[in-house]
Amino acid sequence: MGIIVQKYGGTSMGTIDRIKNVARRIIAKREQGNQMVVVVSAMGKSTDELIKMAYAISDAPPRREMDMLLATGEQVSISMLSMALNAMGYDAISFTGPQVGIHTMGHHGKSRIMGIETKKIEEALDAGKIVIVAGFQGVNDNDDITTLGRGGSDTSAVALSCVLGCPCEIYTDVDGIYGVDPRLYPPAKKLDAVSFDEMLEMASLGAGVMHARAIELGSKYNAEIYVASSLNDVPGTLITEHPPVDESRKRQAITGMAVDNDELMISLKNVPYDTNITAQFFSNLAQKSINIDMISQTAPVYGAINISFSAPIEDLPELRTILYDFMEKYPQVEMDIDKEVSKLSVVGSGMKSQAGVAAKFFATLENNNVPILMITTSEIRISCVIPSELKETAVMATADAFNL
Amino acid sequence: MGIIVQKYGGTSMGTIDRIKNVARRIIAKREQGNQMVVVVSAMGKSTDELIKMAYAISDAPPRREMDMLLATGEQVSISMLSMALNAMGYDAISFTGPQVGIHTMGHHGKSRIMGIETKKIEEALDAGKIVIVAGFQGVNDNDDITTLGRGGSDTSAVALSCVLGCPCEIYTDVDGIYGVDPRLYPPAKKLDAVSFDEMLEMASLGAGVMHARAIELGSKYNAEIYVASSLNDVPGTLITEHPPVDESRKRQAITGMAVDNDELMISLKNVPYDTNITAQFFSNLAQKSINIDMISQTAPVYGAINISFSAPIEDLPELRTILYDFMEKYPQVEMDIDKEVSKLSVVGSGMKSQAGVAAKFFATLENNNVPILMITTSEIRISCVIPSELKETAVMATADAFNL
Repeated sequence: MGIIVQKYGGTSMGTIDRIKNVARRIIAKREQGNQMVVVVSAMGKSTDELIKMAYAISDAPPRREMDMLLATGEQVSISMLSMALNAMGYDAISFTGPQVGIHTMGHHGKSRIMGIETKKIEEALDAGKIVIVAGFQGVNDNDDITTLGRGGSDTSAVALSCVLGCPCEIYTDVDGIYGVDPRLYPPAKKLDAVSFDEMLEMASLGAGVMHARAIELGSKYNAEIYVASSLNDVPGTLITEHPPVDESRKRQAITGMAVDNDELMISLKNVPYDTNITAQFFSNLAQKSINIDMISQTAPVYGAINISFSAPIEDLPELRTILYDFMEKYPQVEMDIDKEVSKLSVVGSGMKSQAGVAAKFFATLENNNVPILMITTSEIRISCVIPSELKETAVMATADAFNL
Repeated sequence: MGIIVQKYGGTSMGTIDRIKNVARRIIAKREQGNQMVVVVSAMGKSTDELIKMAYAISDAPPRREMDMLLATGEQVSISMLSMALNAMGYDAISFTGPQVGIHTMGHHGKSRIMGIETKKIEEALDAGKIVIVAGFQGVNDNDDITTLGRGGSDTSAVALSCVLGCPCEIYTDVDGIYGVDPRLYPPAKKLDAVSFDEMLEMASLGAGVMHARAIELGSKYNAEIYVASSLNDVPGTLITEHPPVDESRKRQAITGMAVDNDELMISLKNVPYDTNITAQFFSNLAQKSINIDMISQTAPVYGAINISFSAPIEDLPELRTILYDFMEKYPQVEMDIDKEVSKLSVVGSGMKSQAGVAAKFFATLENNNVPILMITTSEIRISCVIPSELKETAVMATADAFNL
């Protein structure tokens, strides 16, 4: 008997009937002779509802307490799924992240898994049980409950498959990985396979389907991840080191595109031109684990520079504190926070061997009157910050241009 | 600075505004120079909603998984209250039962507190923090999350006050302890003080205000418990070893009355008259921790007896399993489960020194055409099972007769 780790997301667990559906899918694999370890997210929109509750009582909820609150979402899911399996005649047992020993480090709300104990899981599997583990959560050295950030259940599942040395199947509400989100671009094509590198770029851009840290782990331990729908049996997408060569794909420079609306663009004008000041400012952001994605800086004019950078919208409360401190210290600085921006990115390993991808991308945006506010690139990615209101136009034009 | 343990129930924590109200009450005591340890229940009706969800997915949810599910209710409350206090400028920290080290033994859903670690609490108090602890829950030797049964947060609070050697204040949605539930009998009188013994009888009868195990603990460690409303500042009721003598009260045989609707009456007809069979049956019930309250047995006729007993309605799923097993073994037995019964009890230390209380109680019921289905008594209590439909009549008549 082999072990399989499966993960079911919030939509798959959204109602009593859907939980029963998940239970039946687990049982089907179990009946094929597998030992099942199942990671689940919170039911439906419950995480969003908990966040809303927190902000109803506090403008800046302490992150430790936020983790305490959010962790209840997955705890509800695991017990419900275990009850469903037991009601169908299968012995199942649920564990929270802390119970199973998912040890994390780092800041509350964006902790990283450092290790997982397998003793409890293996004992339960040996006793013939189906093991249900709460995704998204763990415990730090201080015995506090921690969470891994949005989409962290993917990471919990991949990490479990790495320590258990077994395949990982991520079930979600889409059929697999698409070149573009089909909700944004209906003719989007599904990929049979995609490389870890490409997927990592797309995930870290907020492509939504997978948590970036999950892909990183899969890549590091070379653990293939299969992504498919929990609602049908349509073949999904395999994320792997070297996807099999696909003739139609081979000719394409771009594998996929991602749009991220959860970004802010902060512009600071009239900042004193002093490398220490800039370095100290970004070091303060780093200390609070605020992920700065793009930074642009103008040349100094009369001893002052303008700095723009983008950051995740969820970091706004802490970002604001740092910005206000900064402006108190340097009252001449003018600040502008623009929430109405989107980040549009194109990703593809093919970019390395094909010239002119960037030129084509920028030309496409320009021809459609979409201004580019900031640009950043990696070896296999080009990202532009654009005004949110022009997002649809930009997506359509780019997806058409690159045949996604 | 002294420590105070406060407990706030579900109604007190039912909305965002009520949680803020609780936070302000805690701060008021804190500003008087006290170190605060606060135990809270799940918000409003959330425990009931979780139970409903569980039964929507399973007819007989495993109790371990039920505890896993229910424990989330208090975890939401503690984080929300901690956020509220932090937002008001007070450093607060929340702990789940397992985190703080509330060790329990016994069956899931009705576990008993065996010990509480004070290290984490004392460290947090020493660091100037307000400590919020999840009531109702703990952890067993197997590292499973456990719950203490309905109302168990009272027990968590009293147990904490015992280990911390400090006063305990239970805040609820009523002004204190009444001789009769004012919702059933509007002219009911509030008691300034009541003895542990009387309170224990009332609590174990489902008088609703306090969890029986909490009173037991208070009595054992002689830790006074103050019960009052969280919604106003009306003086409440002190539960103590020897309440001060109150002239009007002294002349009364009966201190209070309780009505319990969560009881079943099970009648087994034509049971073989064999002590081993009866003993084995009740031993099976005991093994499942089903609390049998009253038992009556008829004299044998042609080698068969009839047995009736009452049990808590929440134990019905497990009770049913045992009953069906029994009937499979003894097919001649006829069974009847009556859910439409209530248990009416009168309680009072005065009963010991005054004769005729039982006679007066029975006569009152008889004069009002309320049939008595079963009777049980203790030194300071008389209970009758009656048809639920006659509950109101019986309560009114008895409260009038005993001047409650």
